[in-house]
Amino acid sequence: MTGPSPGPGTPQAAAPDPGRLSLNQMTTSRWGVREAVEGCARAGIRAIGLWRHKVAETGLAESARIAAGSGVAVSTLCRGGFFPAATAAGRLAAVDDNRAAIDEAAALGTGVLVLVCGPAPDRDIDAARGMVADGIAAVLPHAEAAGVRLAVEPMHPVFAGDRSVIVTLGEALDLVDHLGASQLGVAVDTYHVWWDPQVHRQLARAAGRILCLQVCDWLVPVTDPLHGRGMPGDGVIELRRLRTEADAAGYAGPIEVEIFNHDIWAQPGERVLEQVWASYLEHV
Amino acid sequence: MTGPSPGPGTPQAAAPDPGRLSLNQMTTSRWGVREAVEGCARAGIRAIGLWRHKVAETGLAESARIAAGSGVAVSTLCRGGFFPAATAAGRLAAVDDNRAAIDEAAALGTGVLVLVCGPAPDRDIDAARGMVADGIAAVLPHAEAAGVRLAVEPMHPVFAGDRSVIVTLGEALDLVDHLGASQLGVAVDTYHVWWDPQVHRQLARAAGRILCLQVCDWLVPVTDPLHGRGMPGDGVIELRRLRTEADAAGYAGPIEVEIFNHDIWAQPGERVLEQVWASYLEHV
Repeated sequence: MTGPSPGPGTPQAAAPDPGRLSLNQMTTSRWGVREAVEGCARAGIRAIGLWRHKVAETGLAESARIAAGSGVAVSTLCRGGFFPAATAAGRLAAVDDNRAAIDEAAALGTGVLVLVCGPAPDRDIDAARGMVADGIAAVLPHAEAAGVRLAVEPMHPVFAGDRSVIVTLGEALDLVDHLGASQLGVAVDTYHVWWDPQVHRQLARAAGRILCLQVCDWLVPVTDPLHGRGMPGDGVIELRRLRTEADAAGYAGPIEVEIFNHDIWAQPGERVLEQVWASYLEHV
Repeated sequence: MTGPSPGPGTPQAAAPDPGRLSLNQMTTSRWGVREAVEGCARAGIRAIGLWRHKVAETGLAESARIAAGSGVAVSTLCRGGFFPAATAAGRLAAVDDNRAAIDEAAALGTGVLVLVCGPAPDRDIDAARGMVADGIAAVLPHAEAAGVRLAVEPMHPVFAGDRSVIVTLGEALDLVDHLGASQLGVAVDTYHVWWDPQVHRQLARAAGRILCLQVCDWLVPVTDPLHGRGMPGDGVIELRRLRTEADAAGYAGPIEVEIFNHDIWAQPGERVLEQVWASYLEHV
């Protein structure tokens, strides 16, 4: 708290390995699975993070076939989660849906299913946090059997009321510790964690448990928290600092550029991939 | 993490003391100082939280005279802060402005100035946090001389890029501890802290240092984080739980209802005060 320090976010930190770049499919949301996988292959992007609703549009078997024949690996499947519900039947339905998501991840050849844990069904956020823990515990045996690891994604607190009661990396790691399964880890998305004064020490604590790293930027001023994410470099996040801290914690896997933004979605996918490449090399 | 518990947020917790209700002036933003103070007096609300830009419109001396003659106490003045700046001259200007705000608080007869600490001037959020600490340290002697306490307000992380780098109650208390001045404490606004898994233990830790309590609700879905706050009871915050925890931490001062919401602002002030009374008694 005593003035500026250069920190590892300064330009002298090395650019990331180009081989680690992955396109999260939502960055080119107009593309179906085939267009996105083929777009990655043409652009020299070696991995892609897929979304279940997109896979469902194309069909699971066909999506798996497209990915397997493309030379583009599937880095993650988004998303499982949404465990809390007002009724026991609702919570059981969520567990069933997560088992299905695990099966889909395995069929697509990815070892990581990202979990957006879900909001509370009422005002009792503590109880909802308990439902998340119970829900993950219920699906862990299925994940282990399928060889799919579950990545708990802490979401920015602006989504605490409608997407996830798990809102900090520390809380996600507490949950992982509590459940004590090697099949479980965290997904770190810079958009969700950058604001947290604890993020640097929690990234160090996350060593060995980071299963997914997603990047995009936080634009100022905020217009639409859901669909206003920025291309790396266009906002205020110390992206290189956070990425190198994840590296230092031992994470050497894919780095997904994941951007929800109507302006970017309106552009041709090929052009978006050019921007993704340039911003990744310069700012991540 | 093992299922629902009734908790203190259930209906059996007692309603708050009606004598503690305060109107934060922004809840009736179309009203000037005179209208708001007279509105409170008519509605039996015994305190008001004023804003500097409203006081400036009416004039400081006139605002002070209106308040002094009304029987309505001034619970707080909003807001000082915004300490970080790219240049030393900018940071000095911020300190000067905060000294002016302290003088205005003293002239208005309130002992509490709320600090919204400000965003980073660049991507270096740690450095900005240092500038906040330095800025508060620089104005503390003036605050002590004026008999005005400074309430550091942690803001919801959705505002981390444009309003405050101080985003959790724990971080605000760390800052208060770091500076070690009895003139310094925290402002707790339910809108800003409700999502935090640490909030309950941090409220207990805040004992003796809560200088201001503000309440409103978090609406779902989120539309406009800045101007989409809800009347107590219309959203998902466990307001009674948080208020009784602040009580348990020894806070017995005014409870300001502070709502930024275009729909509420469009209504006649008298009607808004009726809703404030009802929602305060039922949900706070």
